[in-house]
Amino acid sequence: MTRNPNHDILFEPLQIGPVTTKNRFYQVPHCTGMGWQRPRTLAQMRKVKAMGGWGVINTEYCSIHPASDDSLHISASLWDDSDISAHQLMTEGVHEYGALAGAELWFGGVRSANLSTRLTAMDVASLPNSVGHPFQTRAMDKNDIRDLRRWHRKAALRARDAGFDIVYVYATHGYLLANFLDPRVNTRSDEYGGSLENRTRLVRELIEETKDAVGDRCAVAVRFAADEYEEEDGKPVHGERREMLALLAEYPDLWDINIADYSLEMGVSRFTKEAALEPYMDFVKSVTTKPVVTVGRFTSPDTMASQIKRGVTDLIGAARPSIADPYLPNKIDEGRSDDIRECIGCNICYSGDSLAVPIRCTQNPTMGEEWRKGWNPEVIPSKGSDATVLVVGAGPAGLEAARSLGNRGYHVMLAEATDTLGGRVTREANLPGMSEYIRVRDYREQQLLVMPNVEIFRESRLTAQDVFDVGADHVALATGATWRSDRFDGAAYGAIVEDGSGVQVLTPDDIMDGKLPDGPTLLYDCDGYYMGGVIAEKLHLAGIDVTMAMPSDNVSPWTAMTSEQWRVRTHLMRLGIKLIMSHNLEHFDGAQAMLECVYTETPKVIPVQSVVMVSQRRTNDDLYAGLLAKADGQAENLPFSLKRIGDCEAPAIIAAAVFAGHRYAREMDNPTDPDLPMPHDKVDVSLVKPARQQKALEPQLVK
Amino acid sequence: MTRNPNHDILFEPLQIGPVTTKNRFYQVPHCTGMGWQRPRTLAQMRKVKAMGGWGVINTEYCSIHPASDDSLHISASLWDDSDISAHQLMTEGVHEYGALAGAELWFGGVRSANLSTRLTAMDVASLPNSVGHPFQTRAMDKNDIRDLRRWHRKAALRARDAGFDIVYVYATHGYLLANFLDPRVNTRSDEYGGSLENRTRLVRELIEETKDAVGDRCAVAVRFAADEYEEEDGKPVHGERREMLALLAEYPDLWDINIADYSLEMGVSRFTKEAALEPYMDFVKSVTTKPVVTVGRFTSPDTMASQIKRGVTDLIGAARPSIADPYLPNKIDEGRSDDIRECIGCNICYSGDSLAVPIRCTQNPTMGEEWRKGWNPEVIPSKGSDATVLVVGAGPAGLEAARSLGNRGYHVMLAEATDTLGGRVTREANLPGMSEYIRVRDYREQQLLVMPNVEIFRESRLTAQDVFDVGADHVALATGATWRSDRFDGAAYGAIVEDGSGVQVLTPDDIMDGKLPDGPTLLYDCDGYYMGGVIAEKLHLAGIDVTMAMPSDNVSPWTAMTSEQWRVRTHLMRLGIKLIMSHNLEHFDGAQAMLECVYTETPKVIPVQSVVMVSQRRTNDDLYAGLLAKADGQAENLPFSLKRIGDCEAPAIIAAAVFAGHRYAREMDNPTDPDLPMPHDKVDVSLVKPARQQKALEPQLVK
Repeated sequence: MTRNPNHDILFEPLQIGPVTTKNRFYQVPHCTGMGWQRPRTLAQMRKVKAMGGWGVINTEYCSIHPASDDSLHISASLWDDSDISAHQLMTEGVHEYGALAGAELWFGGVRSANLSTRLTAMDVASLPNSVGHPFQTRAMDKNDIRDLRRWHRKAALRARDAGFDIVYVYATHGYLLANFLDPRVNTRSDEYGGSLENRTRLVRELIEETKDAVGDRCAVAVRFAADEYEEEDGKPVHGERREMLALLAEYPDLWDINIADYSLEMGVSRFTKEAALEPYMDFVKSVTTKPVVTVGRFTSPDTMASQIKRGVTDLIGAARPSIADPYLPNKIDEGRSDDIRECIGCNICYSGDSLAVPIRCTQNPTMGEEWRKGWNPEVIPSKGSDATVLVVGAGPAGLEAARSLGNRGYHVMLAEATDTLGGRVTREANLPGMSEYIRVRDYREQQLLVMPNVEIFRESRLTAQDVFDVGADHVALATGATWRSDRFDGAAYGAIVEDGSGVQVLTPDDIMDGKLPDGPTLLYDCDGYYMGGVIAEKLHLAGIDVTMAMPSDNVSPWTAMTSEQWRVRTHLMRLGIKLIMSHNLEHFDGAQAMLECVYTETPKVIPVQSVVMVSQRRTNDDLYAGLLAKADGQAENLPFSLKRIGDCEAPAIIAAAVFAGHRYAREMDNPTDPDLPMPHDKVDVSLVKPARQQKALEPQLVK
Repeated sequence: MTRNPNHDILFEPLQIGPVTTKNRFYQVPHCTGMGWQRPRTLAQMRKVKAMGGWGVINTEYCSIHPASDDSLHISASLWDDSDISAHQLMTEGVHEYGALAGAELWFGGVRSANLSTRLTAMDVASLPNSVGHPFQTRAMDKNDIRDLRRWHRKAALRARDAGFDIVYVYATHGYLLANFLDPRVNTRSDEYGGSLENRTRLVRELIEETKDAVGDRCAVAVRFAADEYEEEDGKPVHGERREMLALLAEYPDLWDINIADYSLEMGVSRFTKEAALEPYMDFVKSVTTKPVVTVGRFTSPDTMASQIKRGVTDLIGAARPSIADPYLPNKIDEGRSDDIRECIGCNICYSGDSLAVPIRCTQNPTMGEEWRKGWNPEVIPSKGSDATVLVVGAGPAGLEAARSLGNRGYHVMLAEATDTLGGRVTREANLPGMSEYIRVRDYREQQLLVMPNVEIFRESRLTAQDVFDVGADHVALATGATWRSDRFDGAAYGAIVEDGSGVQVLTPDDIMDGKLPDGPTLLYDCDGYYMGGVIAEKLHLAGIDVTMAMPSDNVSPWTAMTSEQWRVRTHLMRLGIKLIMSHNLEHFDGAQAMLECVYTETPKVIPVQSVVMVSQRRTNDDLYAGLLAKADGQAENLPFSLKRIGDCEAPAIIAAAVFAGHRYAREMDNPTDPDLPMPHDKVDVSLVKPARQQKALEPQLVK
């Protein structure tokens, strides 16, 4: 296919200082949970984006010195020359496909407590650590500022030596440089505080010094917030930002623009849609002649082209869209926009950074597996046999298994009990704010529909005998899970209603089936991810008086991992949903819900007519049990291989189901050794030299 | 000096299966935040304990397979043969000093969500992840159990090949094996569930198979809980545990006994004292002939000897005491019990595991620095010059600086403004529950008092001129910090009372000075570590009606890092202290405190007569400023070197102050390059071979 001429503008080269990007697809710096800890995992992941056509590919935040240590979160590092080779692994991979590589030099200041390196954190003033660690910063003196500038310069030189084409001065997101710029935080009385000129001095010096150090070969980018602080969504407060930008306008080679409200910049699709930053930053190009890049979770090529044509930005910045589809640029280039695997805005990618584990993606199951499994999102080996595969259940696991097996050339039969594909994502996408989740289904459904080797059978709820009758060589059960109406007390599941009392308890499945509780309702959330809040909102919108109780100390605690907890709780409170934290639900008699404080066991009685439990899920494994029953309980005795994938094996997040489906397809005729399932991106002591300082350790006491 | 004969029993060898420990000092497995990620850091830390005389030194929990992945927390691993060399680094170091090395083989089950490896977690049943991740386990089938046994055996063989002398079967702490044992969690209907015999089957099989695999060379230990569940402190419920132990009594070579209540086993000194496990486990030796080890945060050699003499245990298990003093056994052996650096029970060590960073210790500033800085807690290089050093302030930083400089042989003058040494630890140790913190002072004070080269000047508040007059070559300012009465709003500090209103706001310093608020009091805690709760308790004990408000969603949020949050909050609630979470304190007019919800900004008014702020601290840097003023603001112009250490540089935890004092002493005449302050225990890509699977990545689309 050929490119849509409306999208040609996205493929125009653009000069950025001394370098030129081949197109306008710009992967902005984004965290990965890999950084310095997993260099091979990281380099291969970035390289795959270059394969997919991104013009510029940046690192995550890259610490310039041990005094900027964001542990437990994992940054990249350029602390000394021994860090260079790890980055070379990335830049060489990126250059191989004609892309530019950028390094985001970073100094944390008040946001990094230096928990690993134990150096005193420093910032513009003596400030409390901004993420809650009990460490205040040292107010930087002139020596500290000199040190910082020297460290930044040395890191820039290392970045150049590592092969980077773009080097950042990172002046936003609450890190050190942002605090120098901020009129409220910067209370200095010296030449780095006070006037706008003084507060921008350090950023300007760093731009100039970086240019001086590496400007002959590398472009210098500045990451910068276009507005001063968040007031209300859609109501930017630019404050002195326009003036500040004007003052610095021509210093760097590139402006990478974000906004003050991180919960909007990184907003989940439940609260934030495509191109949300535009009203905050649309003035930027009017104050600088330098190229501008900004983000907006762009997945529509028309929106992207429009952003450039209308002069909002020069480059299409992307983190999440490049994670969901590393081949997004190539697909647009080839006129295959419909093949784009669109980001659903679930922010599960962000949980990798939150939890210091490699990034994963709901839509792209290969994300994070490029090195250790050798996976590529668009490349999959051809089939290893002429075997036929029956996939039972067309939820996220079943759809992905069928799609990837289909890509490999297998003859696939996909049997779905209902008339709709998608399973849980189709059901959940109907809940308030969740509509973009349908992309998990839509992408796969449209891929499957054109595969001649994949047959889809709707309204086909299979019995064990049906499965035998199909006669497939391999059977994957992707029959999902069902929300339970009881609760887990830490050791065992138990009902919260008297047996035989007839008191009804609803579950998210009931609500998604269209059933609604009667009268004032207690929603009890011991799941802790997004479902509780979404169901509460759904009930509220149906006019039901909702109280939400939970054993956790905060609403939807796991949504902190996906950077949406503040919005979730604020949203629910603004709707008027009552919240009861730190309580277990012990019993419901149809008129009263008996809660108990998780700390003191003090009881609390809530008069309600209905209870909705958002607790655990039960695997839908009747079919699995039925098949085993036909084989004396031994799957080995069956005339086909049998495997459960996704929620029907172990209920979990959608990303885990998609991953399970993909893995099933990859491992068909290509099994992994169960004892050695993957290599480990870790220090191999047999290869390293002894530590340099051992002499002080001789066991002789001085006294 | 010679050993106290009462302690001889601690130095009797003991046979453990095929191996023999030289003494009874047994470092039980404990987390380090190092594990597979920082092998050199880890090995050197363990080796230093062997230098200090520990008879047995174990690893932390050591994963036997990628299906047991506790990310973000960092375990050790024995996933494949490439892991062996990292452990050899430890076992060789440990053997060099005549100690035995043990490996705690571990399979997480329901506690490990496998966030990095993405393998489906599995356990005895389909259970929700027990630390709140949205991943349920797969109920293990027969194949899974066979896999697990094979993985355990293979890991045991690798442990043997790595040189370990003891191999664990880890059957407690809520991990997989504990769940097989538990009658409530284990709901299986096969031969691994139901009867006691069935539920102990897997543990028994693993013991037998481990013995079969490595029993000729290695002892097999079992880590096991002596009681069934916690009821009230001091009221053990043994349930069927006695019967279970009797059933398994003679299978392993060693019983490593803990208890069901982790918050007691790992209790902070605020709530738990030495030897707290005894009433829970004192029956164990009566049911087995095998050696028994247990813990109890033992620091008193008399208590240790008594435990063995009275037949409570055979070996003195220790995690925290071995962290605070790696040389504890040697000190007892040499009759130098008074030199023991006693654990204060602050659990800051635990925060390393919580936060996935290398373990640190308040008492032992060298902990975690053995490899990257070459530090040893008892070995410090002799002085590098005849310089004299003035240390101003005898809090934790000043005391440690003086002690370590004194050890190095420098002539040290320690000037303290008050008549007592200890600074903040002396003050804080008077607060409820905090008495053991005084050990930070006591250890250092008694070391200092016998050093002829250290002069201590009490009641000596120095002016800048005084400092000049002393004529020292080097001056360290350790003048601490003072609690502020204002609050930080995220950008700037601001008063909560009207200027000139005369309304008083107290701080923790006022309370520690003996001042008490009048009438009903709001304590506002935006510090978030232990101080807020401790001050609240102090006020309550003084008969004051206390309401504690905070911007965080839970009480004392950072105490979750030290594994005490549940106890802190429960304790405060049981005292009757009222709690208001998720609110900022905006204003206090002497009669009403105006709060505001951090989510919705909804105001909340609390009628109180007094407010106590537990917020940030202001560095006591008048003297620093005074000295700089005498040198045109340039420390370089002074006739002595000048450095701030501890809270007076940047207010933080006590451990950071002790560390700063120690580092100051180490770096005297031995400066660290500020640009390259430490090596990094990380993968060096220049040394590793390319990844094994790259072939699937060729950029050719199948479709």
